[in-house]
Amino acid sequence: MQGVPPRRTEESTRDLRLKPRLIVNTGEGKGKSTAAFGMGLRAWNQGWSVGVFQFIKSGKWHVGEESAYRALGALHESTGQGGPITWEIMGTGWTWLRSTQSSDPAERARAGWEHVAELIRSGAHQLYILDEFTYCLDNGWIDVDEVLSVLAERPFGHVVITGRRAPEALLDAADLATNMTKIKHPFDAGEKGQPGIEW
Amino acid sequence: MQGVPPRRTEESTRDLRLKPRLIVNTGEGKGKSTAAFGMGLRAWNQGWSVGVFQFIKSGKWHVGEESAYRALGALHESTGQGGPITWEIMGTGWTWLRSTQSSDPAERARAGWEHVAELIRSGAHQLYILDEFTYCLDNGWIDVDEVLSVLAERPFGHVVITGRRAPEALLDAADLATNMTKIKHPFDAGEKGQPGIEW
Repeated sequence: MQGVPPRRTEESTRDLRLKPRLIVNTGEGKGKSTAAFGMGLRAWNQGWSVGVFQFIKSGKWHVGEESAYRALGALHESTGQGGPITWEIMGTGWTWLRSTQSSDPAERARAGWEHVAELIRSGAHQLYILDEFTYCLDNGWIDVDEVLSVLAERPFGHVVITGRRAPEALLDAADLATNMTKIKHPFDAGEKGQPGIEW
Repeated sequence: MQGVPPRRTEESTRDLRLKPRLIVNTGEGKGKSTAAFGMGLRAWNQGWSVGVFQFIKSGKWHVGEESAYRALGALHESTGQGGPITWEIMGTGWTWLRSTQSSDPAERARAGWEHVAELIRSGAHQLYILDEFTYCLDNGWIDVDEVLSVLAERPFGHVVITGRRAPEALLDAADLATNMTKIKHPFDAGEKGQPGIEW
């Protein structure tokens, strides 16, 4: 298990293995968030601090991942295995700012982003999962150039952003971008969501 | 509903929520396996038994997920939280058959499939992740019709199959299929793999 990576000053072999990545999972298909949470298991196993920030409150939809992540975070606290986990959901856990209590989704999104931006600037985590963050950008609630500016200045830390309709500027800035393209989905045939699959 | 017909005699609400799904994550992009492992967290949280079967030995590439999954499985054993986890890797853990020691990858793949097929027939798990299984089909090591026949007869159990070049017949039978389409990948620019991202 490796510890927290240092800041880089030159391109040693070790440096080449510690480049902060901006990763975008977008598209209409399934797997954008689940792939981010699968990747987070790797970071956890590296002993890294993982921060998950759910920008769109989606009720039960990530309850399984949240439960497993919290279990892994608790395991780290009790045994030292893996890394610490932070999981914050806008509108419930995000209570540190009055504005997050606003009924205006744009105001809540901006307050949430300000919080996450501060964590990124301070190097609080080594992996940030900004789940369904693209909707905040696509809706114009948060300015994509401001986001890219914060990311450009960040100390080490991988950032994974998920959601449909990722703006072109975000894709341009990304190191790794994947479009989850739907081939078929049972909802199209009127099927219902399944426990263990959809939540 | 297209695809493999589940064994049902009537469509109660409960039945509609417990339809065994065949899910395929394919394509050239990133996220096929990580999405499967992210989905597995949902099944774990349902208290389900999750079986992971790595059909192509890929060294370090899933070591993070494996470690986290084993931790979650151990947590289930010690506290009852979540469900049990089985993780088997062809060529190392798969030692119960002489033929898995074969140097012939086709023979090893067939022996591995026979083992997994028996588990599926007996309803050993509620979620089966057949990681990189498509390569065994695409290479002709395992007959896709035989696989679909086993799946069609299975008791309840979701099956997730990952890997590039999923055969058409598999996609036709799938309930849910997603193509992870590469928009960009840092390897294309000569970048090296990153801990916490690639493993």
